[in-house]
Amino acid sequence: MGESQKHVGVLGLGRMGAALAGALLGAGHDVVVWNRSPLKAGPLLDRGARLAATPAEAASADVVLSCLSTYDTQQPVLEAASPKVLVNLTSGTPEQARDVAKWAASAGVEYVDGVIMAVPQGIGTPAAQILYSGSETTFSAQRDVLEVLGKPIFVGEDAGMAALYDLSLLAMMWSTMAGYLHALALVGTEGVTPEQFAPVASAWQAAVGGFLPRIGEQVASGDYATDVSALDINAAGLAMLVETSRAQGISTAVPAVLRELFDRAIAAGHGAHAIASVIEEIR
Amino acid sequence: MGESQKHVGVLGLGRMGAALAGALLGAGHDVVVWNRSPLKAGPLLDRGARLAATPAEAASADVVLSCLSTYDTQQPVLEAASPKVLVNLTSGTPEQARDVAKWAASAGVEYVDGVIMAVPQGIGTPAAQILYSGSETTFSAQRDVLEVLGKPIFVGEDAGMAALYDLSLLAMMWSTMAGYLHALALVGTEGVTPEQFAPVASAWQAAVGGFLPRIGEQVASGDYATDVSALDINAAGLAMLVETSRAQGISTAVPAVLRELFDRAIAAGHGAHAIASVIEEIR
Ligand SMILES: NC(=O)c1ccc[n+]([C@@H]2O[C@H](COP(=O)([O-])OP(=O)(O)OC[C@H]3O[C@@H](n4cnc5c(N)ncnc54)[C@H](OP(=O)(O)O)[C@@H]3O)[C@@H](O)[C@H]2O)c1
Ligand SMILES: NC(=O)c1ccc[n+]([C@@H]2O[C@H](COP(=O)([O-])OP(=O)(O)OC[C@H]3O[C@@H](n4cnc5c(N)ncnc54)[C@H](OP(=O)(O)O)[C@@H]3O)[C@@H](O)[C@H]2O)c1
Repeated sequence: MGESQKHVGVLGLGRMGAALAGALLGAGHDVVVWNRSPLKAGPLLDRGARLAATPAEAASADVVLSCLSTYDTQQPVLEAASPKVLVNLTSGTPEQARDVAKWAASAGVEYVDGVIMAVPQGIGTPAAQILYSGSETTFSAQRDVLEVLGKPIFVGEDAGMAALYDLSLLAMMWSTMAGYLHALALVGTEGVTPEQFAPVASAWQAAVGGFLPRIGEQVASGDYATDVSALDINAAGLAMLVETSRAQGISTAVPAVLRELFDRAIAAGHGAHAIASVIEEIR
Repeated sequence: MGESQKHVGVLGLGRMGAALAGALLGAGHDVVVWNRSPLKAGPLLDRGARLAATPAEAASADVVLSCLSTYDTQQPVLEAASPKVLVNLTSGTPEQARDVAKWAASAGVEYVDGVIMAVPQGIGTPAAQILYSGSETTFSAQRDVLEVLGKPIFVGEDAGMAALYDLSLLAMMWSTMAGYLHALALVGTEGVTPEQFAPVASAWQAAVGGFLPRIGEQVASGDYATDVSALDINAAGLAMLVETSRAQGISTAVPAVLRELFDRAIAAGHGAHAIASVIEEIR
């Protein structure tokens, strides 16, 4: 343990908690772990972690990270632990994060809420963005530890902010995945395999990523003029997608809801505008 | 005009048709253009294109590309043109493409259907994937011309195949964009601007792209075991997204339909499986 190393507690050793503890051990920190099912700690103990018998034992550390399935399962564990400094990496709503912040304030616990935009296998790489909100002083003081986990980004003093970003980014992920699954199902009706479709789809997914910054600019300015493609041509395409999905015998759920959304925007006068104008029907 | 250059006709000079004609001129081809509103040809004539007074005049070329708004607007133009070799780049359904292929066969027209996975501004770059189906012989014979427009990919002798890929890839694009607009609307409720959100979102969008190949493998094998994240934890997240969207006063349309889909997959026994298992509820 080097001089700049810290004593870090980790509450929860599920897929994600175990990855967090592993990264901290890899960086040479002194790690103490607690999990409801202590057997899951085995591989971490082999790598030098110490096992706490209770949450409170793990909470004797300089800083405690918690990563349990939900806020409801977490709260009794936090209250039993009563750490000095808490970084809460369990996923939840902004409201839940604010409630924990209130509890922390009343219990004299320094508090930062964090959300992990990565899979467990991505922890410890710079591609893993981890967003934090709450006390910026605490965030800065723990930055050395947080940098081990991924790229730390502070998004505001309101403790609920990280959770708001999290749900928003997950909305992107779930939509993209549902669109991809719809695409695989549709080409699959004519015998195209995921293996055949994947290279075309991956290149296209990257191209679509390139369209997003312009959408952001249009939303920011409210200027929806387009020299690319108008909403009504896209809505006509969506109608064809719904029709073809039905004709090929697959679900129309995902395209149908998009079609309704686009049609509402057209009814509101955005037919000649860019797709970005659809936000007017969402917000 | 070099020896390997061809005489190419372009029917339709909308945003996309004009970009196609421009790329062909840039590559030194002999280009003859026709558009319902001839004034739109101006900039292309300045660059050396010739204006045809009728579709038939443009169809005297070695090969004719058509790019009109819809198949319905296109069919009378094609019948008036009666080209020797037709590459149809208008977007439509697989059934519409097969109908044009039937007409082409009966009219003695060599026929390839193509779909452009790019915006007009991307034409002529290798990032512009253009998928073709129909006669592979014709595709190969016209490859020199098609390579000028983007990266040509042949996806099958069934003329409807390119349109099936097109709608499937567009399903990905529309879903991704709708998810992004939902995300912008949600963070916007707490005053986060698109400018603040964009860098985090773009990095995340790239990370999500990295999750797609694994989803394809899981769909291909039907093995939905996961060491990343189970469907039930994602469905719980979707429930929080719906709840938070409602609490923040924005539409729940997009997340609600995804939530229903995920919940149906869980009801069918996929709660501990990967998100890829949701395809069982789509196909
Ligand atoms: N996996 C991902 O890709 C990912 C990505 C970003 C964020 N997250 C978030 O990270 C958090 C953990 O996810 P995960 O993937 O690690 O989940 P997981 O593998 O299912 O692990 C769940 C953890 O919660 C504990 N737990 C559940 N119920 C409990 C209870 N009643 N009392 C005490 N402990 C309890 C489990 O303990 P036992 O071992 O005793 O069951 C385990 O440590 C979630 O909020 C998730 O949304 C996950
Ligand atoms: N823009 C894109 O990003 C994009 C991407 C991929 C595929 N596409 C596809 O490319 C095709 C053209 O799109 P675009 O963006 O170029 O559309 P656009 O800018 O709206 O142009 C439409 C074209 O269709 C012609 N047209 C419309 N109705 C007609 C009629 N009744 N008779 C004769 N001509 C008629 C127009 O002629 P006038 O000039 O006389 O009105 C114009 O040439 C569509 O199928 C679209 O889905 C577009």
